[in-house]
Amino acid sequence: MLGVTILGNNSAIPAHDRHPTAQILTLHNELILIDCGEGTQVQIAKYKIKYNKINHIFISHLHGDHYFGLIGLITSWGLMNRDHDLHLYAPPLLKNIIDLQLTAASTSLPYNLIFHPLGSNGIIADEANFTVESFSTKHRIPCWGFIFREKKRLRRLILKEALKYNIAESTFANLQKGEDVFNRAGELIKNATVTTSNTAAKSYVFCGDTKYDESLIDIVKNTQLMYHETTYLKNLNEKATMRFHSTTEQAATLAAKAGVQQLIIGHFSSNYSNLDEFVTESRAVFPNTHLALEGLTFRL
Amino acid sequence: MLGVTILGNNSAIPAHDRHPTAQILTLHNELILIDCGEGTQVQIAKYKIKYNKINHIFISHLHGDHYFGLIGLITSWGLMNRDHDLHLYAPPLLKNIIDLQLTAASTSLPYNLIFHPLGSNGIIADEANFTVESFSTKHRIPCWGFIFREKKRLRRLILKEALKYNIAESTFANLQKGEDVFNRAGELIKNATVTTSNTAAKSYVFCGDTKYDESLIDIVKNTQLMYHETTYLKNLNEKATMRFHSTTEQAATLAAKAGVQQLIIGHFSSNYSNLDEFVTESRAVFPNTHLALEGLTFRL
Repeated sequence: MLGVTILGNNSAIPAHDRHPTAQILTLHNELILIDCGEGTQVQIAKYKIKYNKINHIFISHLHGDHYFGLIGLITSWGLMNRDHDLHLYAPPLLKNIIDLQLTAASTSLPYNLIFHPLGSNGIIADEANFTVESFSTKHRIPCWGFIFREKKRLRRLILKEALKYNIAESTFANLQKGEDVFNRAGELIKNATVTTSNTAAKSYVFCGDTKYDESLIDIVKNTQLMYHETTYLKNLNEKATMRFHSTTEQAATLAAKAGVQQLIIGHFSSNYSNLDEFVTESRAVFPNTHLALEGLTFRL
Repeated sequence: MLGVTILGNNSAIPAHDRHPTAQILTLHNELILIDCGEGTQVQIAKYKIKYNKINHIFISHLHGDHYFGLIGLITSWGLMNRDHDLHLYAPPLLKNIIDLQLTAASTSLPYNLIFHPLGSNGIIADEANFTVESFSTKHRIPCWGFIFREKKRLRRLILKEALKYNIAESTFANLQKGEDVFNRAGELIKNATVTTSNTAAKSYVFCGDTKYDESLIDIVKNTQLMYHETTYLKNLNEKATMRFHSTTEQAATLAAKAGVQQLIIGHFSSNYSNLDEFVTESRAVFPNTHLALEGLTFRL
């Protein structure tokens, strides 16, 4: 299962009971936090997220609406006696900010906070069940997007067939990886004879803050679910470009050109109290668009 | 008018829909923010505080539940194009923390943020209508309390009497200050003949985080309204002392010994979902005690 739960969907200043950017990605049994605006720890409690299962946090960039909630969250987890490692992937300067704040409070965390500075593009995390790839976006300050990919699933063994063909248990793992094996009688058994394919590996791309950038098309294509910011409606195209942000039409155009399956839009400007036009404008270009409403979970 | 509006009353970790410490002090037409836990900007909007009238912020110490909301608040005010000076009184290291975060965002504020580092005790602000005095408290890290005092009010001129006694308008200001004056005929007119006293100057003391400390009695006596933390109920006396915090009984005892008129208690541990015992235990020692419930305003 891959699911994305929205904890915050607003840009810059909190307004209209909307919170700054934060999302929880669920991948199998792992929870991953993406961005962490002010108030994220309260949103995590409100939506009953199992925070103890969050072992990886990714911060796209150092504008406050994407990370001001992080220091409160990691120190609260310290007060709650978290004891297992936490991996933080973020722009390098965030380490200095956190260290300075911990020093000021004369506090040390009771768990390991392992900092991974973002820099060059490419694979930045390679875990048992997933990989994460970062890529730069075009924003006013250095900013990164992230592609989360499930690892290719193992093939499903048809146990009855495997036993019938007299295959040794010691080679089952090879079958699951898709290999052909020799059975106990020394005969070559073709993989497809005793396995079936499992569901395809899933992927999610979080595009960070960015102006419209067609160089992202090659990067995000073949992902199934894409989040792209839409700070403004399409009539504010020029303002969006000037502020290194995107419009509804631009996000939807990118989704269409990249051929993703579903698009989630968010990071709405505080100037909009009503979001109906966001989804109307986006769907005109890319029908399978959804608003990043807080509390919703999008599942693949 | 002096009024204290509670925006946050919880300690450490936000819980039970209670927020970390923040208070708005209203003094005449001035609003003053005392401490600024995470989410304070949202609380300010929720309770319709006229944030543009806030020109002074006081931060007691650098535990996160007292200041993690500050960077979001001051950058939001920047995005909202605030243009008038903001005075910030806080432990020195907070300046480094703010500067680093502004640098990381490549942001500069469109208004002057004037930083006043806390250090020695005594008068730290002397404004047209009030003064502020800081004092050290006994906490795990350097921490300050603040006494806010209205300036002595001018006496009220009885205009009819002043004219009857043939007093020149040029000496009215002296009468308001309480002086006797000579009238146009060269006769000495006693002040009390032509003025009445105005209401007495009011004062509020915010005690910061502290363990029970009788040396505060001399400092806070003669103030009318006192806020004192009560992180724990009285049965956790030892835990409170060990953690440099106070209990209900201790706060109430200090209020009684100092002879203040009213006591507000807050900074409740997240372990308590119900606060009834806090007020019961405190009132047993100091009857005029009130819970710092969020959204309440205490007026003198």
